[in-house]
Amino acid sequence: MAFITLTTDFGTKDHFVGAVKGAIYSELKDAKIIDITHQISPFNITETAYILKNSYKSFPEGSIHIVGVDSELSNENKHIALLLDNHYFICPDNGLISMIASEINPTKIVEITIHNRVESSFPVLDVFVQVACFIAKGGSLSVIGKEIKEFQKLIEIQPKVNQTQTKIIGNVIYIDNYGNVISNISKKQFQKIGKGRSFKIVAHRHFFTKIYSKYNEIVNCQNIGEQNLYDGEKLAIFNSAGFLEIAIYRSSLGTVGGASSLLGLKYRDVISVEFKSLETKKETDVFSAIP
Amino acid sequence: MAFITLTTDFGTKDHFVGAVKGAIYSELKDAKIIDITHQISPFNITETAYILKNSYKSFPEGSIHIVGVDSELSNENKHIALLLDNHYFICPDNGLISMIASEINPTKIVEITIHNRVESSFPVLDVFVQVACFIAKGGSLSVIGKEIKEFQKLIEIQPKVNQTQTKIIGNVIYIDNYGNVISNISKKQFQKIGKGRSFKIVAHRHFFTKIYSKYNEIVNCQNIGEQNLYDGEKLAIFNSAGFLEIAIYRSSLGTVGGASSLLGLKYRDVISVEFKSLETKKETDVFSAIP
Amino acid sequence: MAFITLTTDFGTKDHFVGAVKGAIYSELKDAKIIDITHQISPFNITETAYILKNSYKSFPEGSIHIVGVDSELSNENKHIALLLDNHYFICPDNGLISMIASEINPTKIVEITIHNRVESSFPVLDVFVQVACFIAKGGSLSVIGKEIKEFQKLIEIQPKVNQTQTKIIGNVIYIDNYGNVISNISKKQFQKIGKGRSFKIVAHRHFFTKIYSKYNEIVNCQNIGEQNLYDGEKLAIFNSAGFLEIAIYRSSLGTVGGASSLLGLKYRDVISVEFKSLETKKETDVFSAIP
Repeated sequence: MAFITLTTDFGTKDHFVGAVKGAIYSELKDAKIIDITHQISPFNITETAYILKNSYKSFPEGSIHIVGVDSELSNENKHIALLLDNHYFICPDNGLISMIASEINPTKIVEITIHNRVESSFPVLDVFVQVACFIAKGGSLSVIGKEIKEFQKLIEIQPKVNQTQTKIIGNVIYIDNYGNVISNISKKQFQKIGKGRSFKIVAHRHFFTKIYSKYNEIVNCQNIGEQNLYDGEKLAIFNSAGFLEIAIYRSSLGTVGGASSLLGLKYRDVISVEFKSLETKKETDVFSAIP
Repeated sequence: MAFITLTTDFGTKDHFVGAVKGAIYSELKDAKIIDITHQISPFNITETAYILKNSYKSFPEGSIHIVGVDSELSNENKHIALLLDNHYFICPDNGLISMIASEINPTKIVEITIHNRVESSFPVLDVFVQVACFIAKGGSLSVIGKEIKEFQKLIEIQPKVNQTQTKIIGNVIYIDNYGNVISNISKKQFQKIGKGRSFKIVAHRHFFTKIYSKYNEIVNCQNIGEQNLYDGEKLAIFNSAGFLEIAIYRSSLGTVGGASSLLGLKYRDVISVEFKSLETKKETDVFSAIP
Repeated sequence: MAFITLTTDFGTKDHFVGAVKGAIYSELKDAKIIDITHQISPFNITETAYILKNSYKSFPEGSIHIVGVDSELSNENKHIALLLDNHYFICPDNGLISMIASEINPTKIVEITIHNRVESSFPVLDVFVQVACFIAKGGSLSVIGKEIKEFQKLIEIQPKVNQTQTKIIGNVIYIDNYGNVISNISKKQFQKIGKGRSFKIVAHRHFFTKIYSKYNEIVNCQNIGEQNLYDGEKLAIFNSAGFLEIAIYRSSLGTVGGASSLLGLKYRDVISVEFKSLETKKETDVFSAIP
């Protein structure tokens, strides 16, 4: 049985998603088609990379992930199919795979060439579905296209570290359903650079000296019923995807607002971590121990 | 074959829903996973209860319903699994089950204890999925946790009745996709208290003395083509879920507006029903017979 | 295995979709239920027709398409089931089928009569699901209702052509997820009337003399990296559904805006095509060759 996931910026109103699913079922009656999301902000590759990285691993090995974001074919924007971490990805070569591939090298990448005669403004339907069904039936990547070794890199996804290793300068790469603001700074990188030193996180005019591992760790109450006192408090957390996140406890974008609206943090804004330098002469800033 | 439904406030953009589905399929290749909704207003338990109550019964007996709303574990917010009306529910013990359990007693409730060592900010993925797959494979609730007899009650869900049984004071518990305003006053309670008496419904500055059973009963036209004359008319109806609803005929929140916007009714606003008192001396108010 | 699709204006927050799916699975454990969309603007029949026309064909023959838009039963709004192009449709007889049936005649249409005793404000759940499951199990349309020959026509869906065949006057029938503005003028009709003549498309205050077949045909760059210069350019295209569309290159309604917001084009606005008349004496307007 084939598991085929869809990650697109099609939205859920238009006919695009229905047409794609129908085409897959017409080829593969038994396929399991799973929507990862169709709500990617149009053409936003960073969002796509973040969402895909945090969801693909849950699926059974051998799953096929179709990505339909900014996928119109051009000389600058080839179509590729690849095997990485025992999962198949079919996507444009526009950098979105680099967030996943930054940790795990692809086993094989091919540039899709089966569609050289297809002029299409809807390549997910006209090309990607064919490729997915071909792979699902046991077809080899080599038949789909010619092997390539390089793929586009998405530079903005990597945070910068200063020379003295006292600062990680990251950016907001995603704002989630609760308005939580997610940076590109991973727990792994934080620990590698920080080496247990105390630190200060700076996000706009806001400072954090503690990073939680659960949202409700902020609640430090003896008496049942006091939980609500903490609603609306800001906090820094390593989220379930392993990234540094600025959150508002029990926030809701639609009503009280989330970290993004309440703290004025937008996509691409800088979030940085300053570590206590190893030779500390004066230290007037507030620094705290890692929890 | 296992039917597993998802009711969450995750939204459909983030990776959360995809990750949860992938994890279920990795355990249970044949599972049927059905989205009830992921659009619950963040942390809104009343909405969750209303939606779950009105959808779970349609599913085959033995279905497993995962509820991911306000589900982070704390001393105040335990995780429970229960069998009720031949359906399984896996959810936080935050009151949401009380709307369903107000009519049908749970057969068995356990407090989930298999995760005592899991520190997780994403318990639906890390805990609820495991529990659901365990139940789907025929596992017993007793293995998952220790049996408990009590669960949290959600008080605001129950309307009040005055001492002389002439008034039901309810609240808006839900606003639907059309902007229709749904109260917590059920047809059952209305009939039990009303005993066939004439009545007046009061919602903000608006009055209703008739309750319809279909929206287009308001259209009383002889000539085909006059239906549109009634677009935008306000009406009271017992909706398909059996609750008293204030609606605008053929409304659309996005364009002309719905009852919520046009009549100024918000979540938690009071909607009351006044019945004619049994000993009527003076009666100056307008009362009508129940249809 | 039965493929059953859903196209509704229910939205994805309320319990309606979940209830319908549960009811189908309770009857047909093996059904494949596919959401085409639940985001139709409430009661909008033109949108429904456009989306359905562009998605149903992808599905395997014999698929059953449930349409829940403006489906409350009345004397003016019968329920019908039909076989058309080897697909089954279950829907209200409110004109939505006429966009599909304008090109292909239905094989058989019946007026559903099995529900004559059902008073329901939720006919999709109470009636359409029953009909769909009956058909999926091999039941005959004749058992569901009495055969009829006529169905409601939706007039606004057809563009007008002037007597001298120099002008097609169409309308905006749909605005998609990217803000692209889609007219009811099909490529087929354009070619039939235009007969290769040069033309001018008029949409509000905007003119187009070229129609692209891919969005990025507008990019005419030698150097890699110049693609972004074209972001925000307006263009006319025959979209993947075969209709004339006014688009903004790489637009996004949520951020920079789409053709609808940037060019001020709304649902039902006029979009027309003027062809060079065959006997050309004076021709001061700008006309271009069809690409």
